[in-house]
Amino acid sequence: MQSFATTLVLYISVIAALLQNVIAAVSSQAPSNATAEQLENQKRSFSIGYVVFPGWEPLDVFGPLEILFEMSFYYKMTLAVIAKEVGPVATVPPPHNIGGPSGPHMDVGFLLGPTITATHTFENAPALDILIVPGGEGVVALEEANDTSAEDFVASRVGELDYLLSVCTGAAILAKSGVLNGKRATTNKGAWAQVTSFGTNISWVPSARWVVDGNVWTSSGVAAGLDMTYAFMKYLYGTEDLDPVMNSIEYAPHTNPHWDPFSVVHNVPGADKNMSLIDCVGPVGYS
Amino acid sequence: MQSFATTLVLYISVIAALLQNVIAAVSSQAPSNATAEQLENQKRSFSIGYVVFPGWEPLDVFGPLEILFEMSFYYKMTLAVIAKEVGPVATVPPPHNIGGPSGPHMDVGFLLGPTITATHTFENAPALDILIVPGGEGVVALEEANDTSAEDFVASRVGELDYLLSVCTGAAILAKSGVLNGKRATTNKGAWAQVTSFGTNISWVPSARWVVDGNVWTSSGVAAGLDMTYAFMKYLYGTEDLDPVMNSIEYAPHTNPHWDPFSVVHNVPGADKNMSLIDCVGPVGYS
Repeated sequence: MQSFATTLVLYISVIAALLQNVIAAVSSQAPSNATAEQLENQKRSFSIGYVVFPGWEPLDVFGPLEILFEMSFYYKMTLAVIAKEVGPVATVPPPHNIGGPSGPHMDVGFLLGPTITATHTFENAPALDILIVPGGEGVVALEEANDTSAEDFVASRVGELDYLLSVCTGAAILAKSGVLNGKRATTNKGAWAQVTSFGTNISWVPSARWVVDGNVWTSSGVAAGLDMTYAFMKYLYGTEDLDPVMNSIEYAPHTNPHWDPFSVVHNVPGADKNMSLIDCVGPVGYS
Repeated sequence: MQSFATTLVLYISVIAALLQNVIAAVSSQAPSNATAEQLENQKRSFSIGYVVFPGWEPLDVFGPLEILFEMSFYYKMTLAVIAKEVGPVATVPPPHNIGGPSGPHMDVGFLLGPTITATHTFENAPALDILIVPGGEGVVALEEANDTSAEDFVASRVGELDYLLSVCTGAAILAKSGVLNGKRATTNKGAWAQVTSFGTNISWVPSARWVVDGNVWTSSGVAAGLDMTYAFMKYLYGTEDLDPVMNSIEYAPHTNPHWDPFSVVHNVPGADKNMSLIDCVGPVGYS
């Protein structure tokens, strides 16, 4: 039989537990809807690498980086910007046949050329959890020059990654690296014919804003990177801090990965011509 | 009376002119819908300046720059990235009270810090036709440090500009420069109270994706810069090359400047609470 003291302690513990539940229920802090894995992700750090090359597409890089930047206020992340050489890397590709081998040979040095600073090279990039590969006209220039440094790097790191992402024609680099073999993927719809000529045994999905196969996420062109990144952040962390971030940066994401009117606009073979070209969007969490 | 030779020449000229009209009518090149001013804009160059400072918001800069970059393939533009010092400028602001004077003092050096390379200083920036001022937490840091270099630069150049644009809290810099006095303007809705405390005699528009008053264009927060830039490019050049660009970068812009659900989300005083939070968008030119 328990002593009076033990009984009292038990009694107080029960009352305290009940009070905690009452307080939690009435407090403005809603209980987290995050899964166990998301709660773990919220606590750990992620080492993120972003590949760049001369002729990187601005929004392919800074669309996803906007969301990652804002989320880095809440969750631990590091960023390595990785190229052949450290230092400024411009959005201007070197002279080459524009769009592909049959395109006009042009020196497009007159294009606006803002630069991002590469912090690491393919040789000394740190250990990575997440690797993101953008597209842009620079992908075409690399192919023409037989420069395989980007896909070699992807191939060398894929084994250590938690997640591998590509935006737009960055999928061509993933295809050439071999990591998409046996996988479903998508890419920029205006460059469909060129990009899907790379790689082997890839199930290219003609109508998709983005595709997820295992730990590989590939998006359609340029602005689709923003929508893929929202979905990726939601998958990784849940919406607790993500949705307020989206509403502070005033971006109403496209949340349906099957919405892809640009596959219809660009006459991609196999595109879903029956789907609506329109998507109705609003602030996440409010509609 | 004309000679036979003269008559023959006239006869041939008339036939040639008729043939030209026939060829133009059946050719695939649709006649341009551009206004006379847009046709002039298509032929001239524009000198564009983009202000940056430590703590610039990524998408405030590279959203508009994505569209400008793509349009620079078709129309002559130059870009100067302008800051206090040339060289890399990061998205990380220096330690300061976050969000405003009453916010927590924090060193946010842990944020992801990609950099853009400033090509010019406020002292040596070239002659400008268009000046764009982004926002970001750096605006708050500049205010706390009593650093007026950005607004002083805007004030010094406004007289020579064809157009002045701000994205997000960049409107605070415009307000402090005095250029918004007597004008309508808008800004990031999550930072409404702070930004609208600056300047005098400004008609702040509580619900607007962007506002145009004379030659001054101001947008709401972050992603709204993309939509304002589409509208600005359409105004400047027409849609001939712009719409194909938007469909190649797969961005379906919000084209209604009155759609501003974030003013409702962020409880901006005077926000239009009756408007729909939803906007239905699709590829421009197809819907």
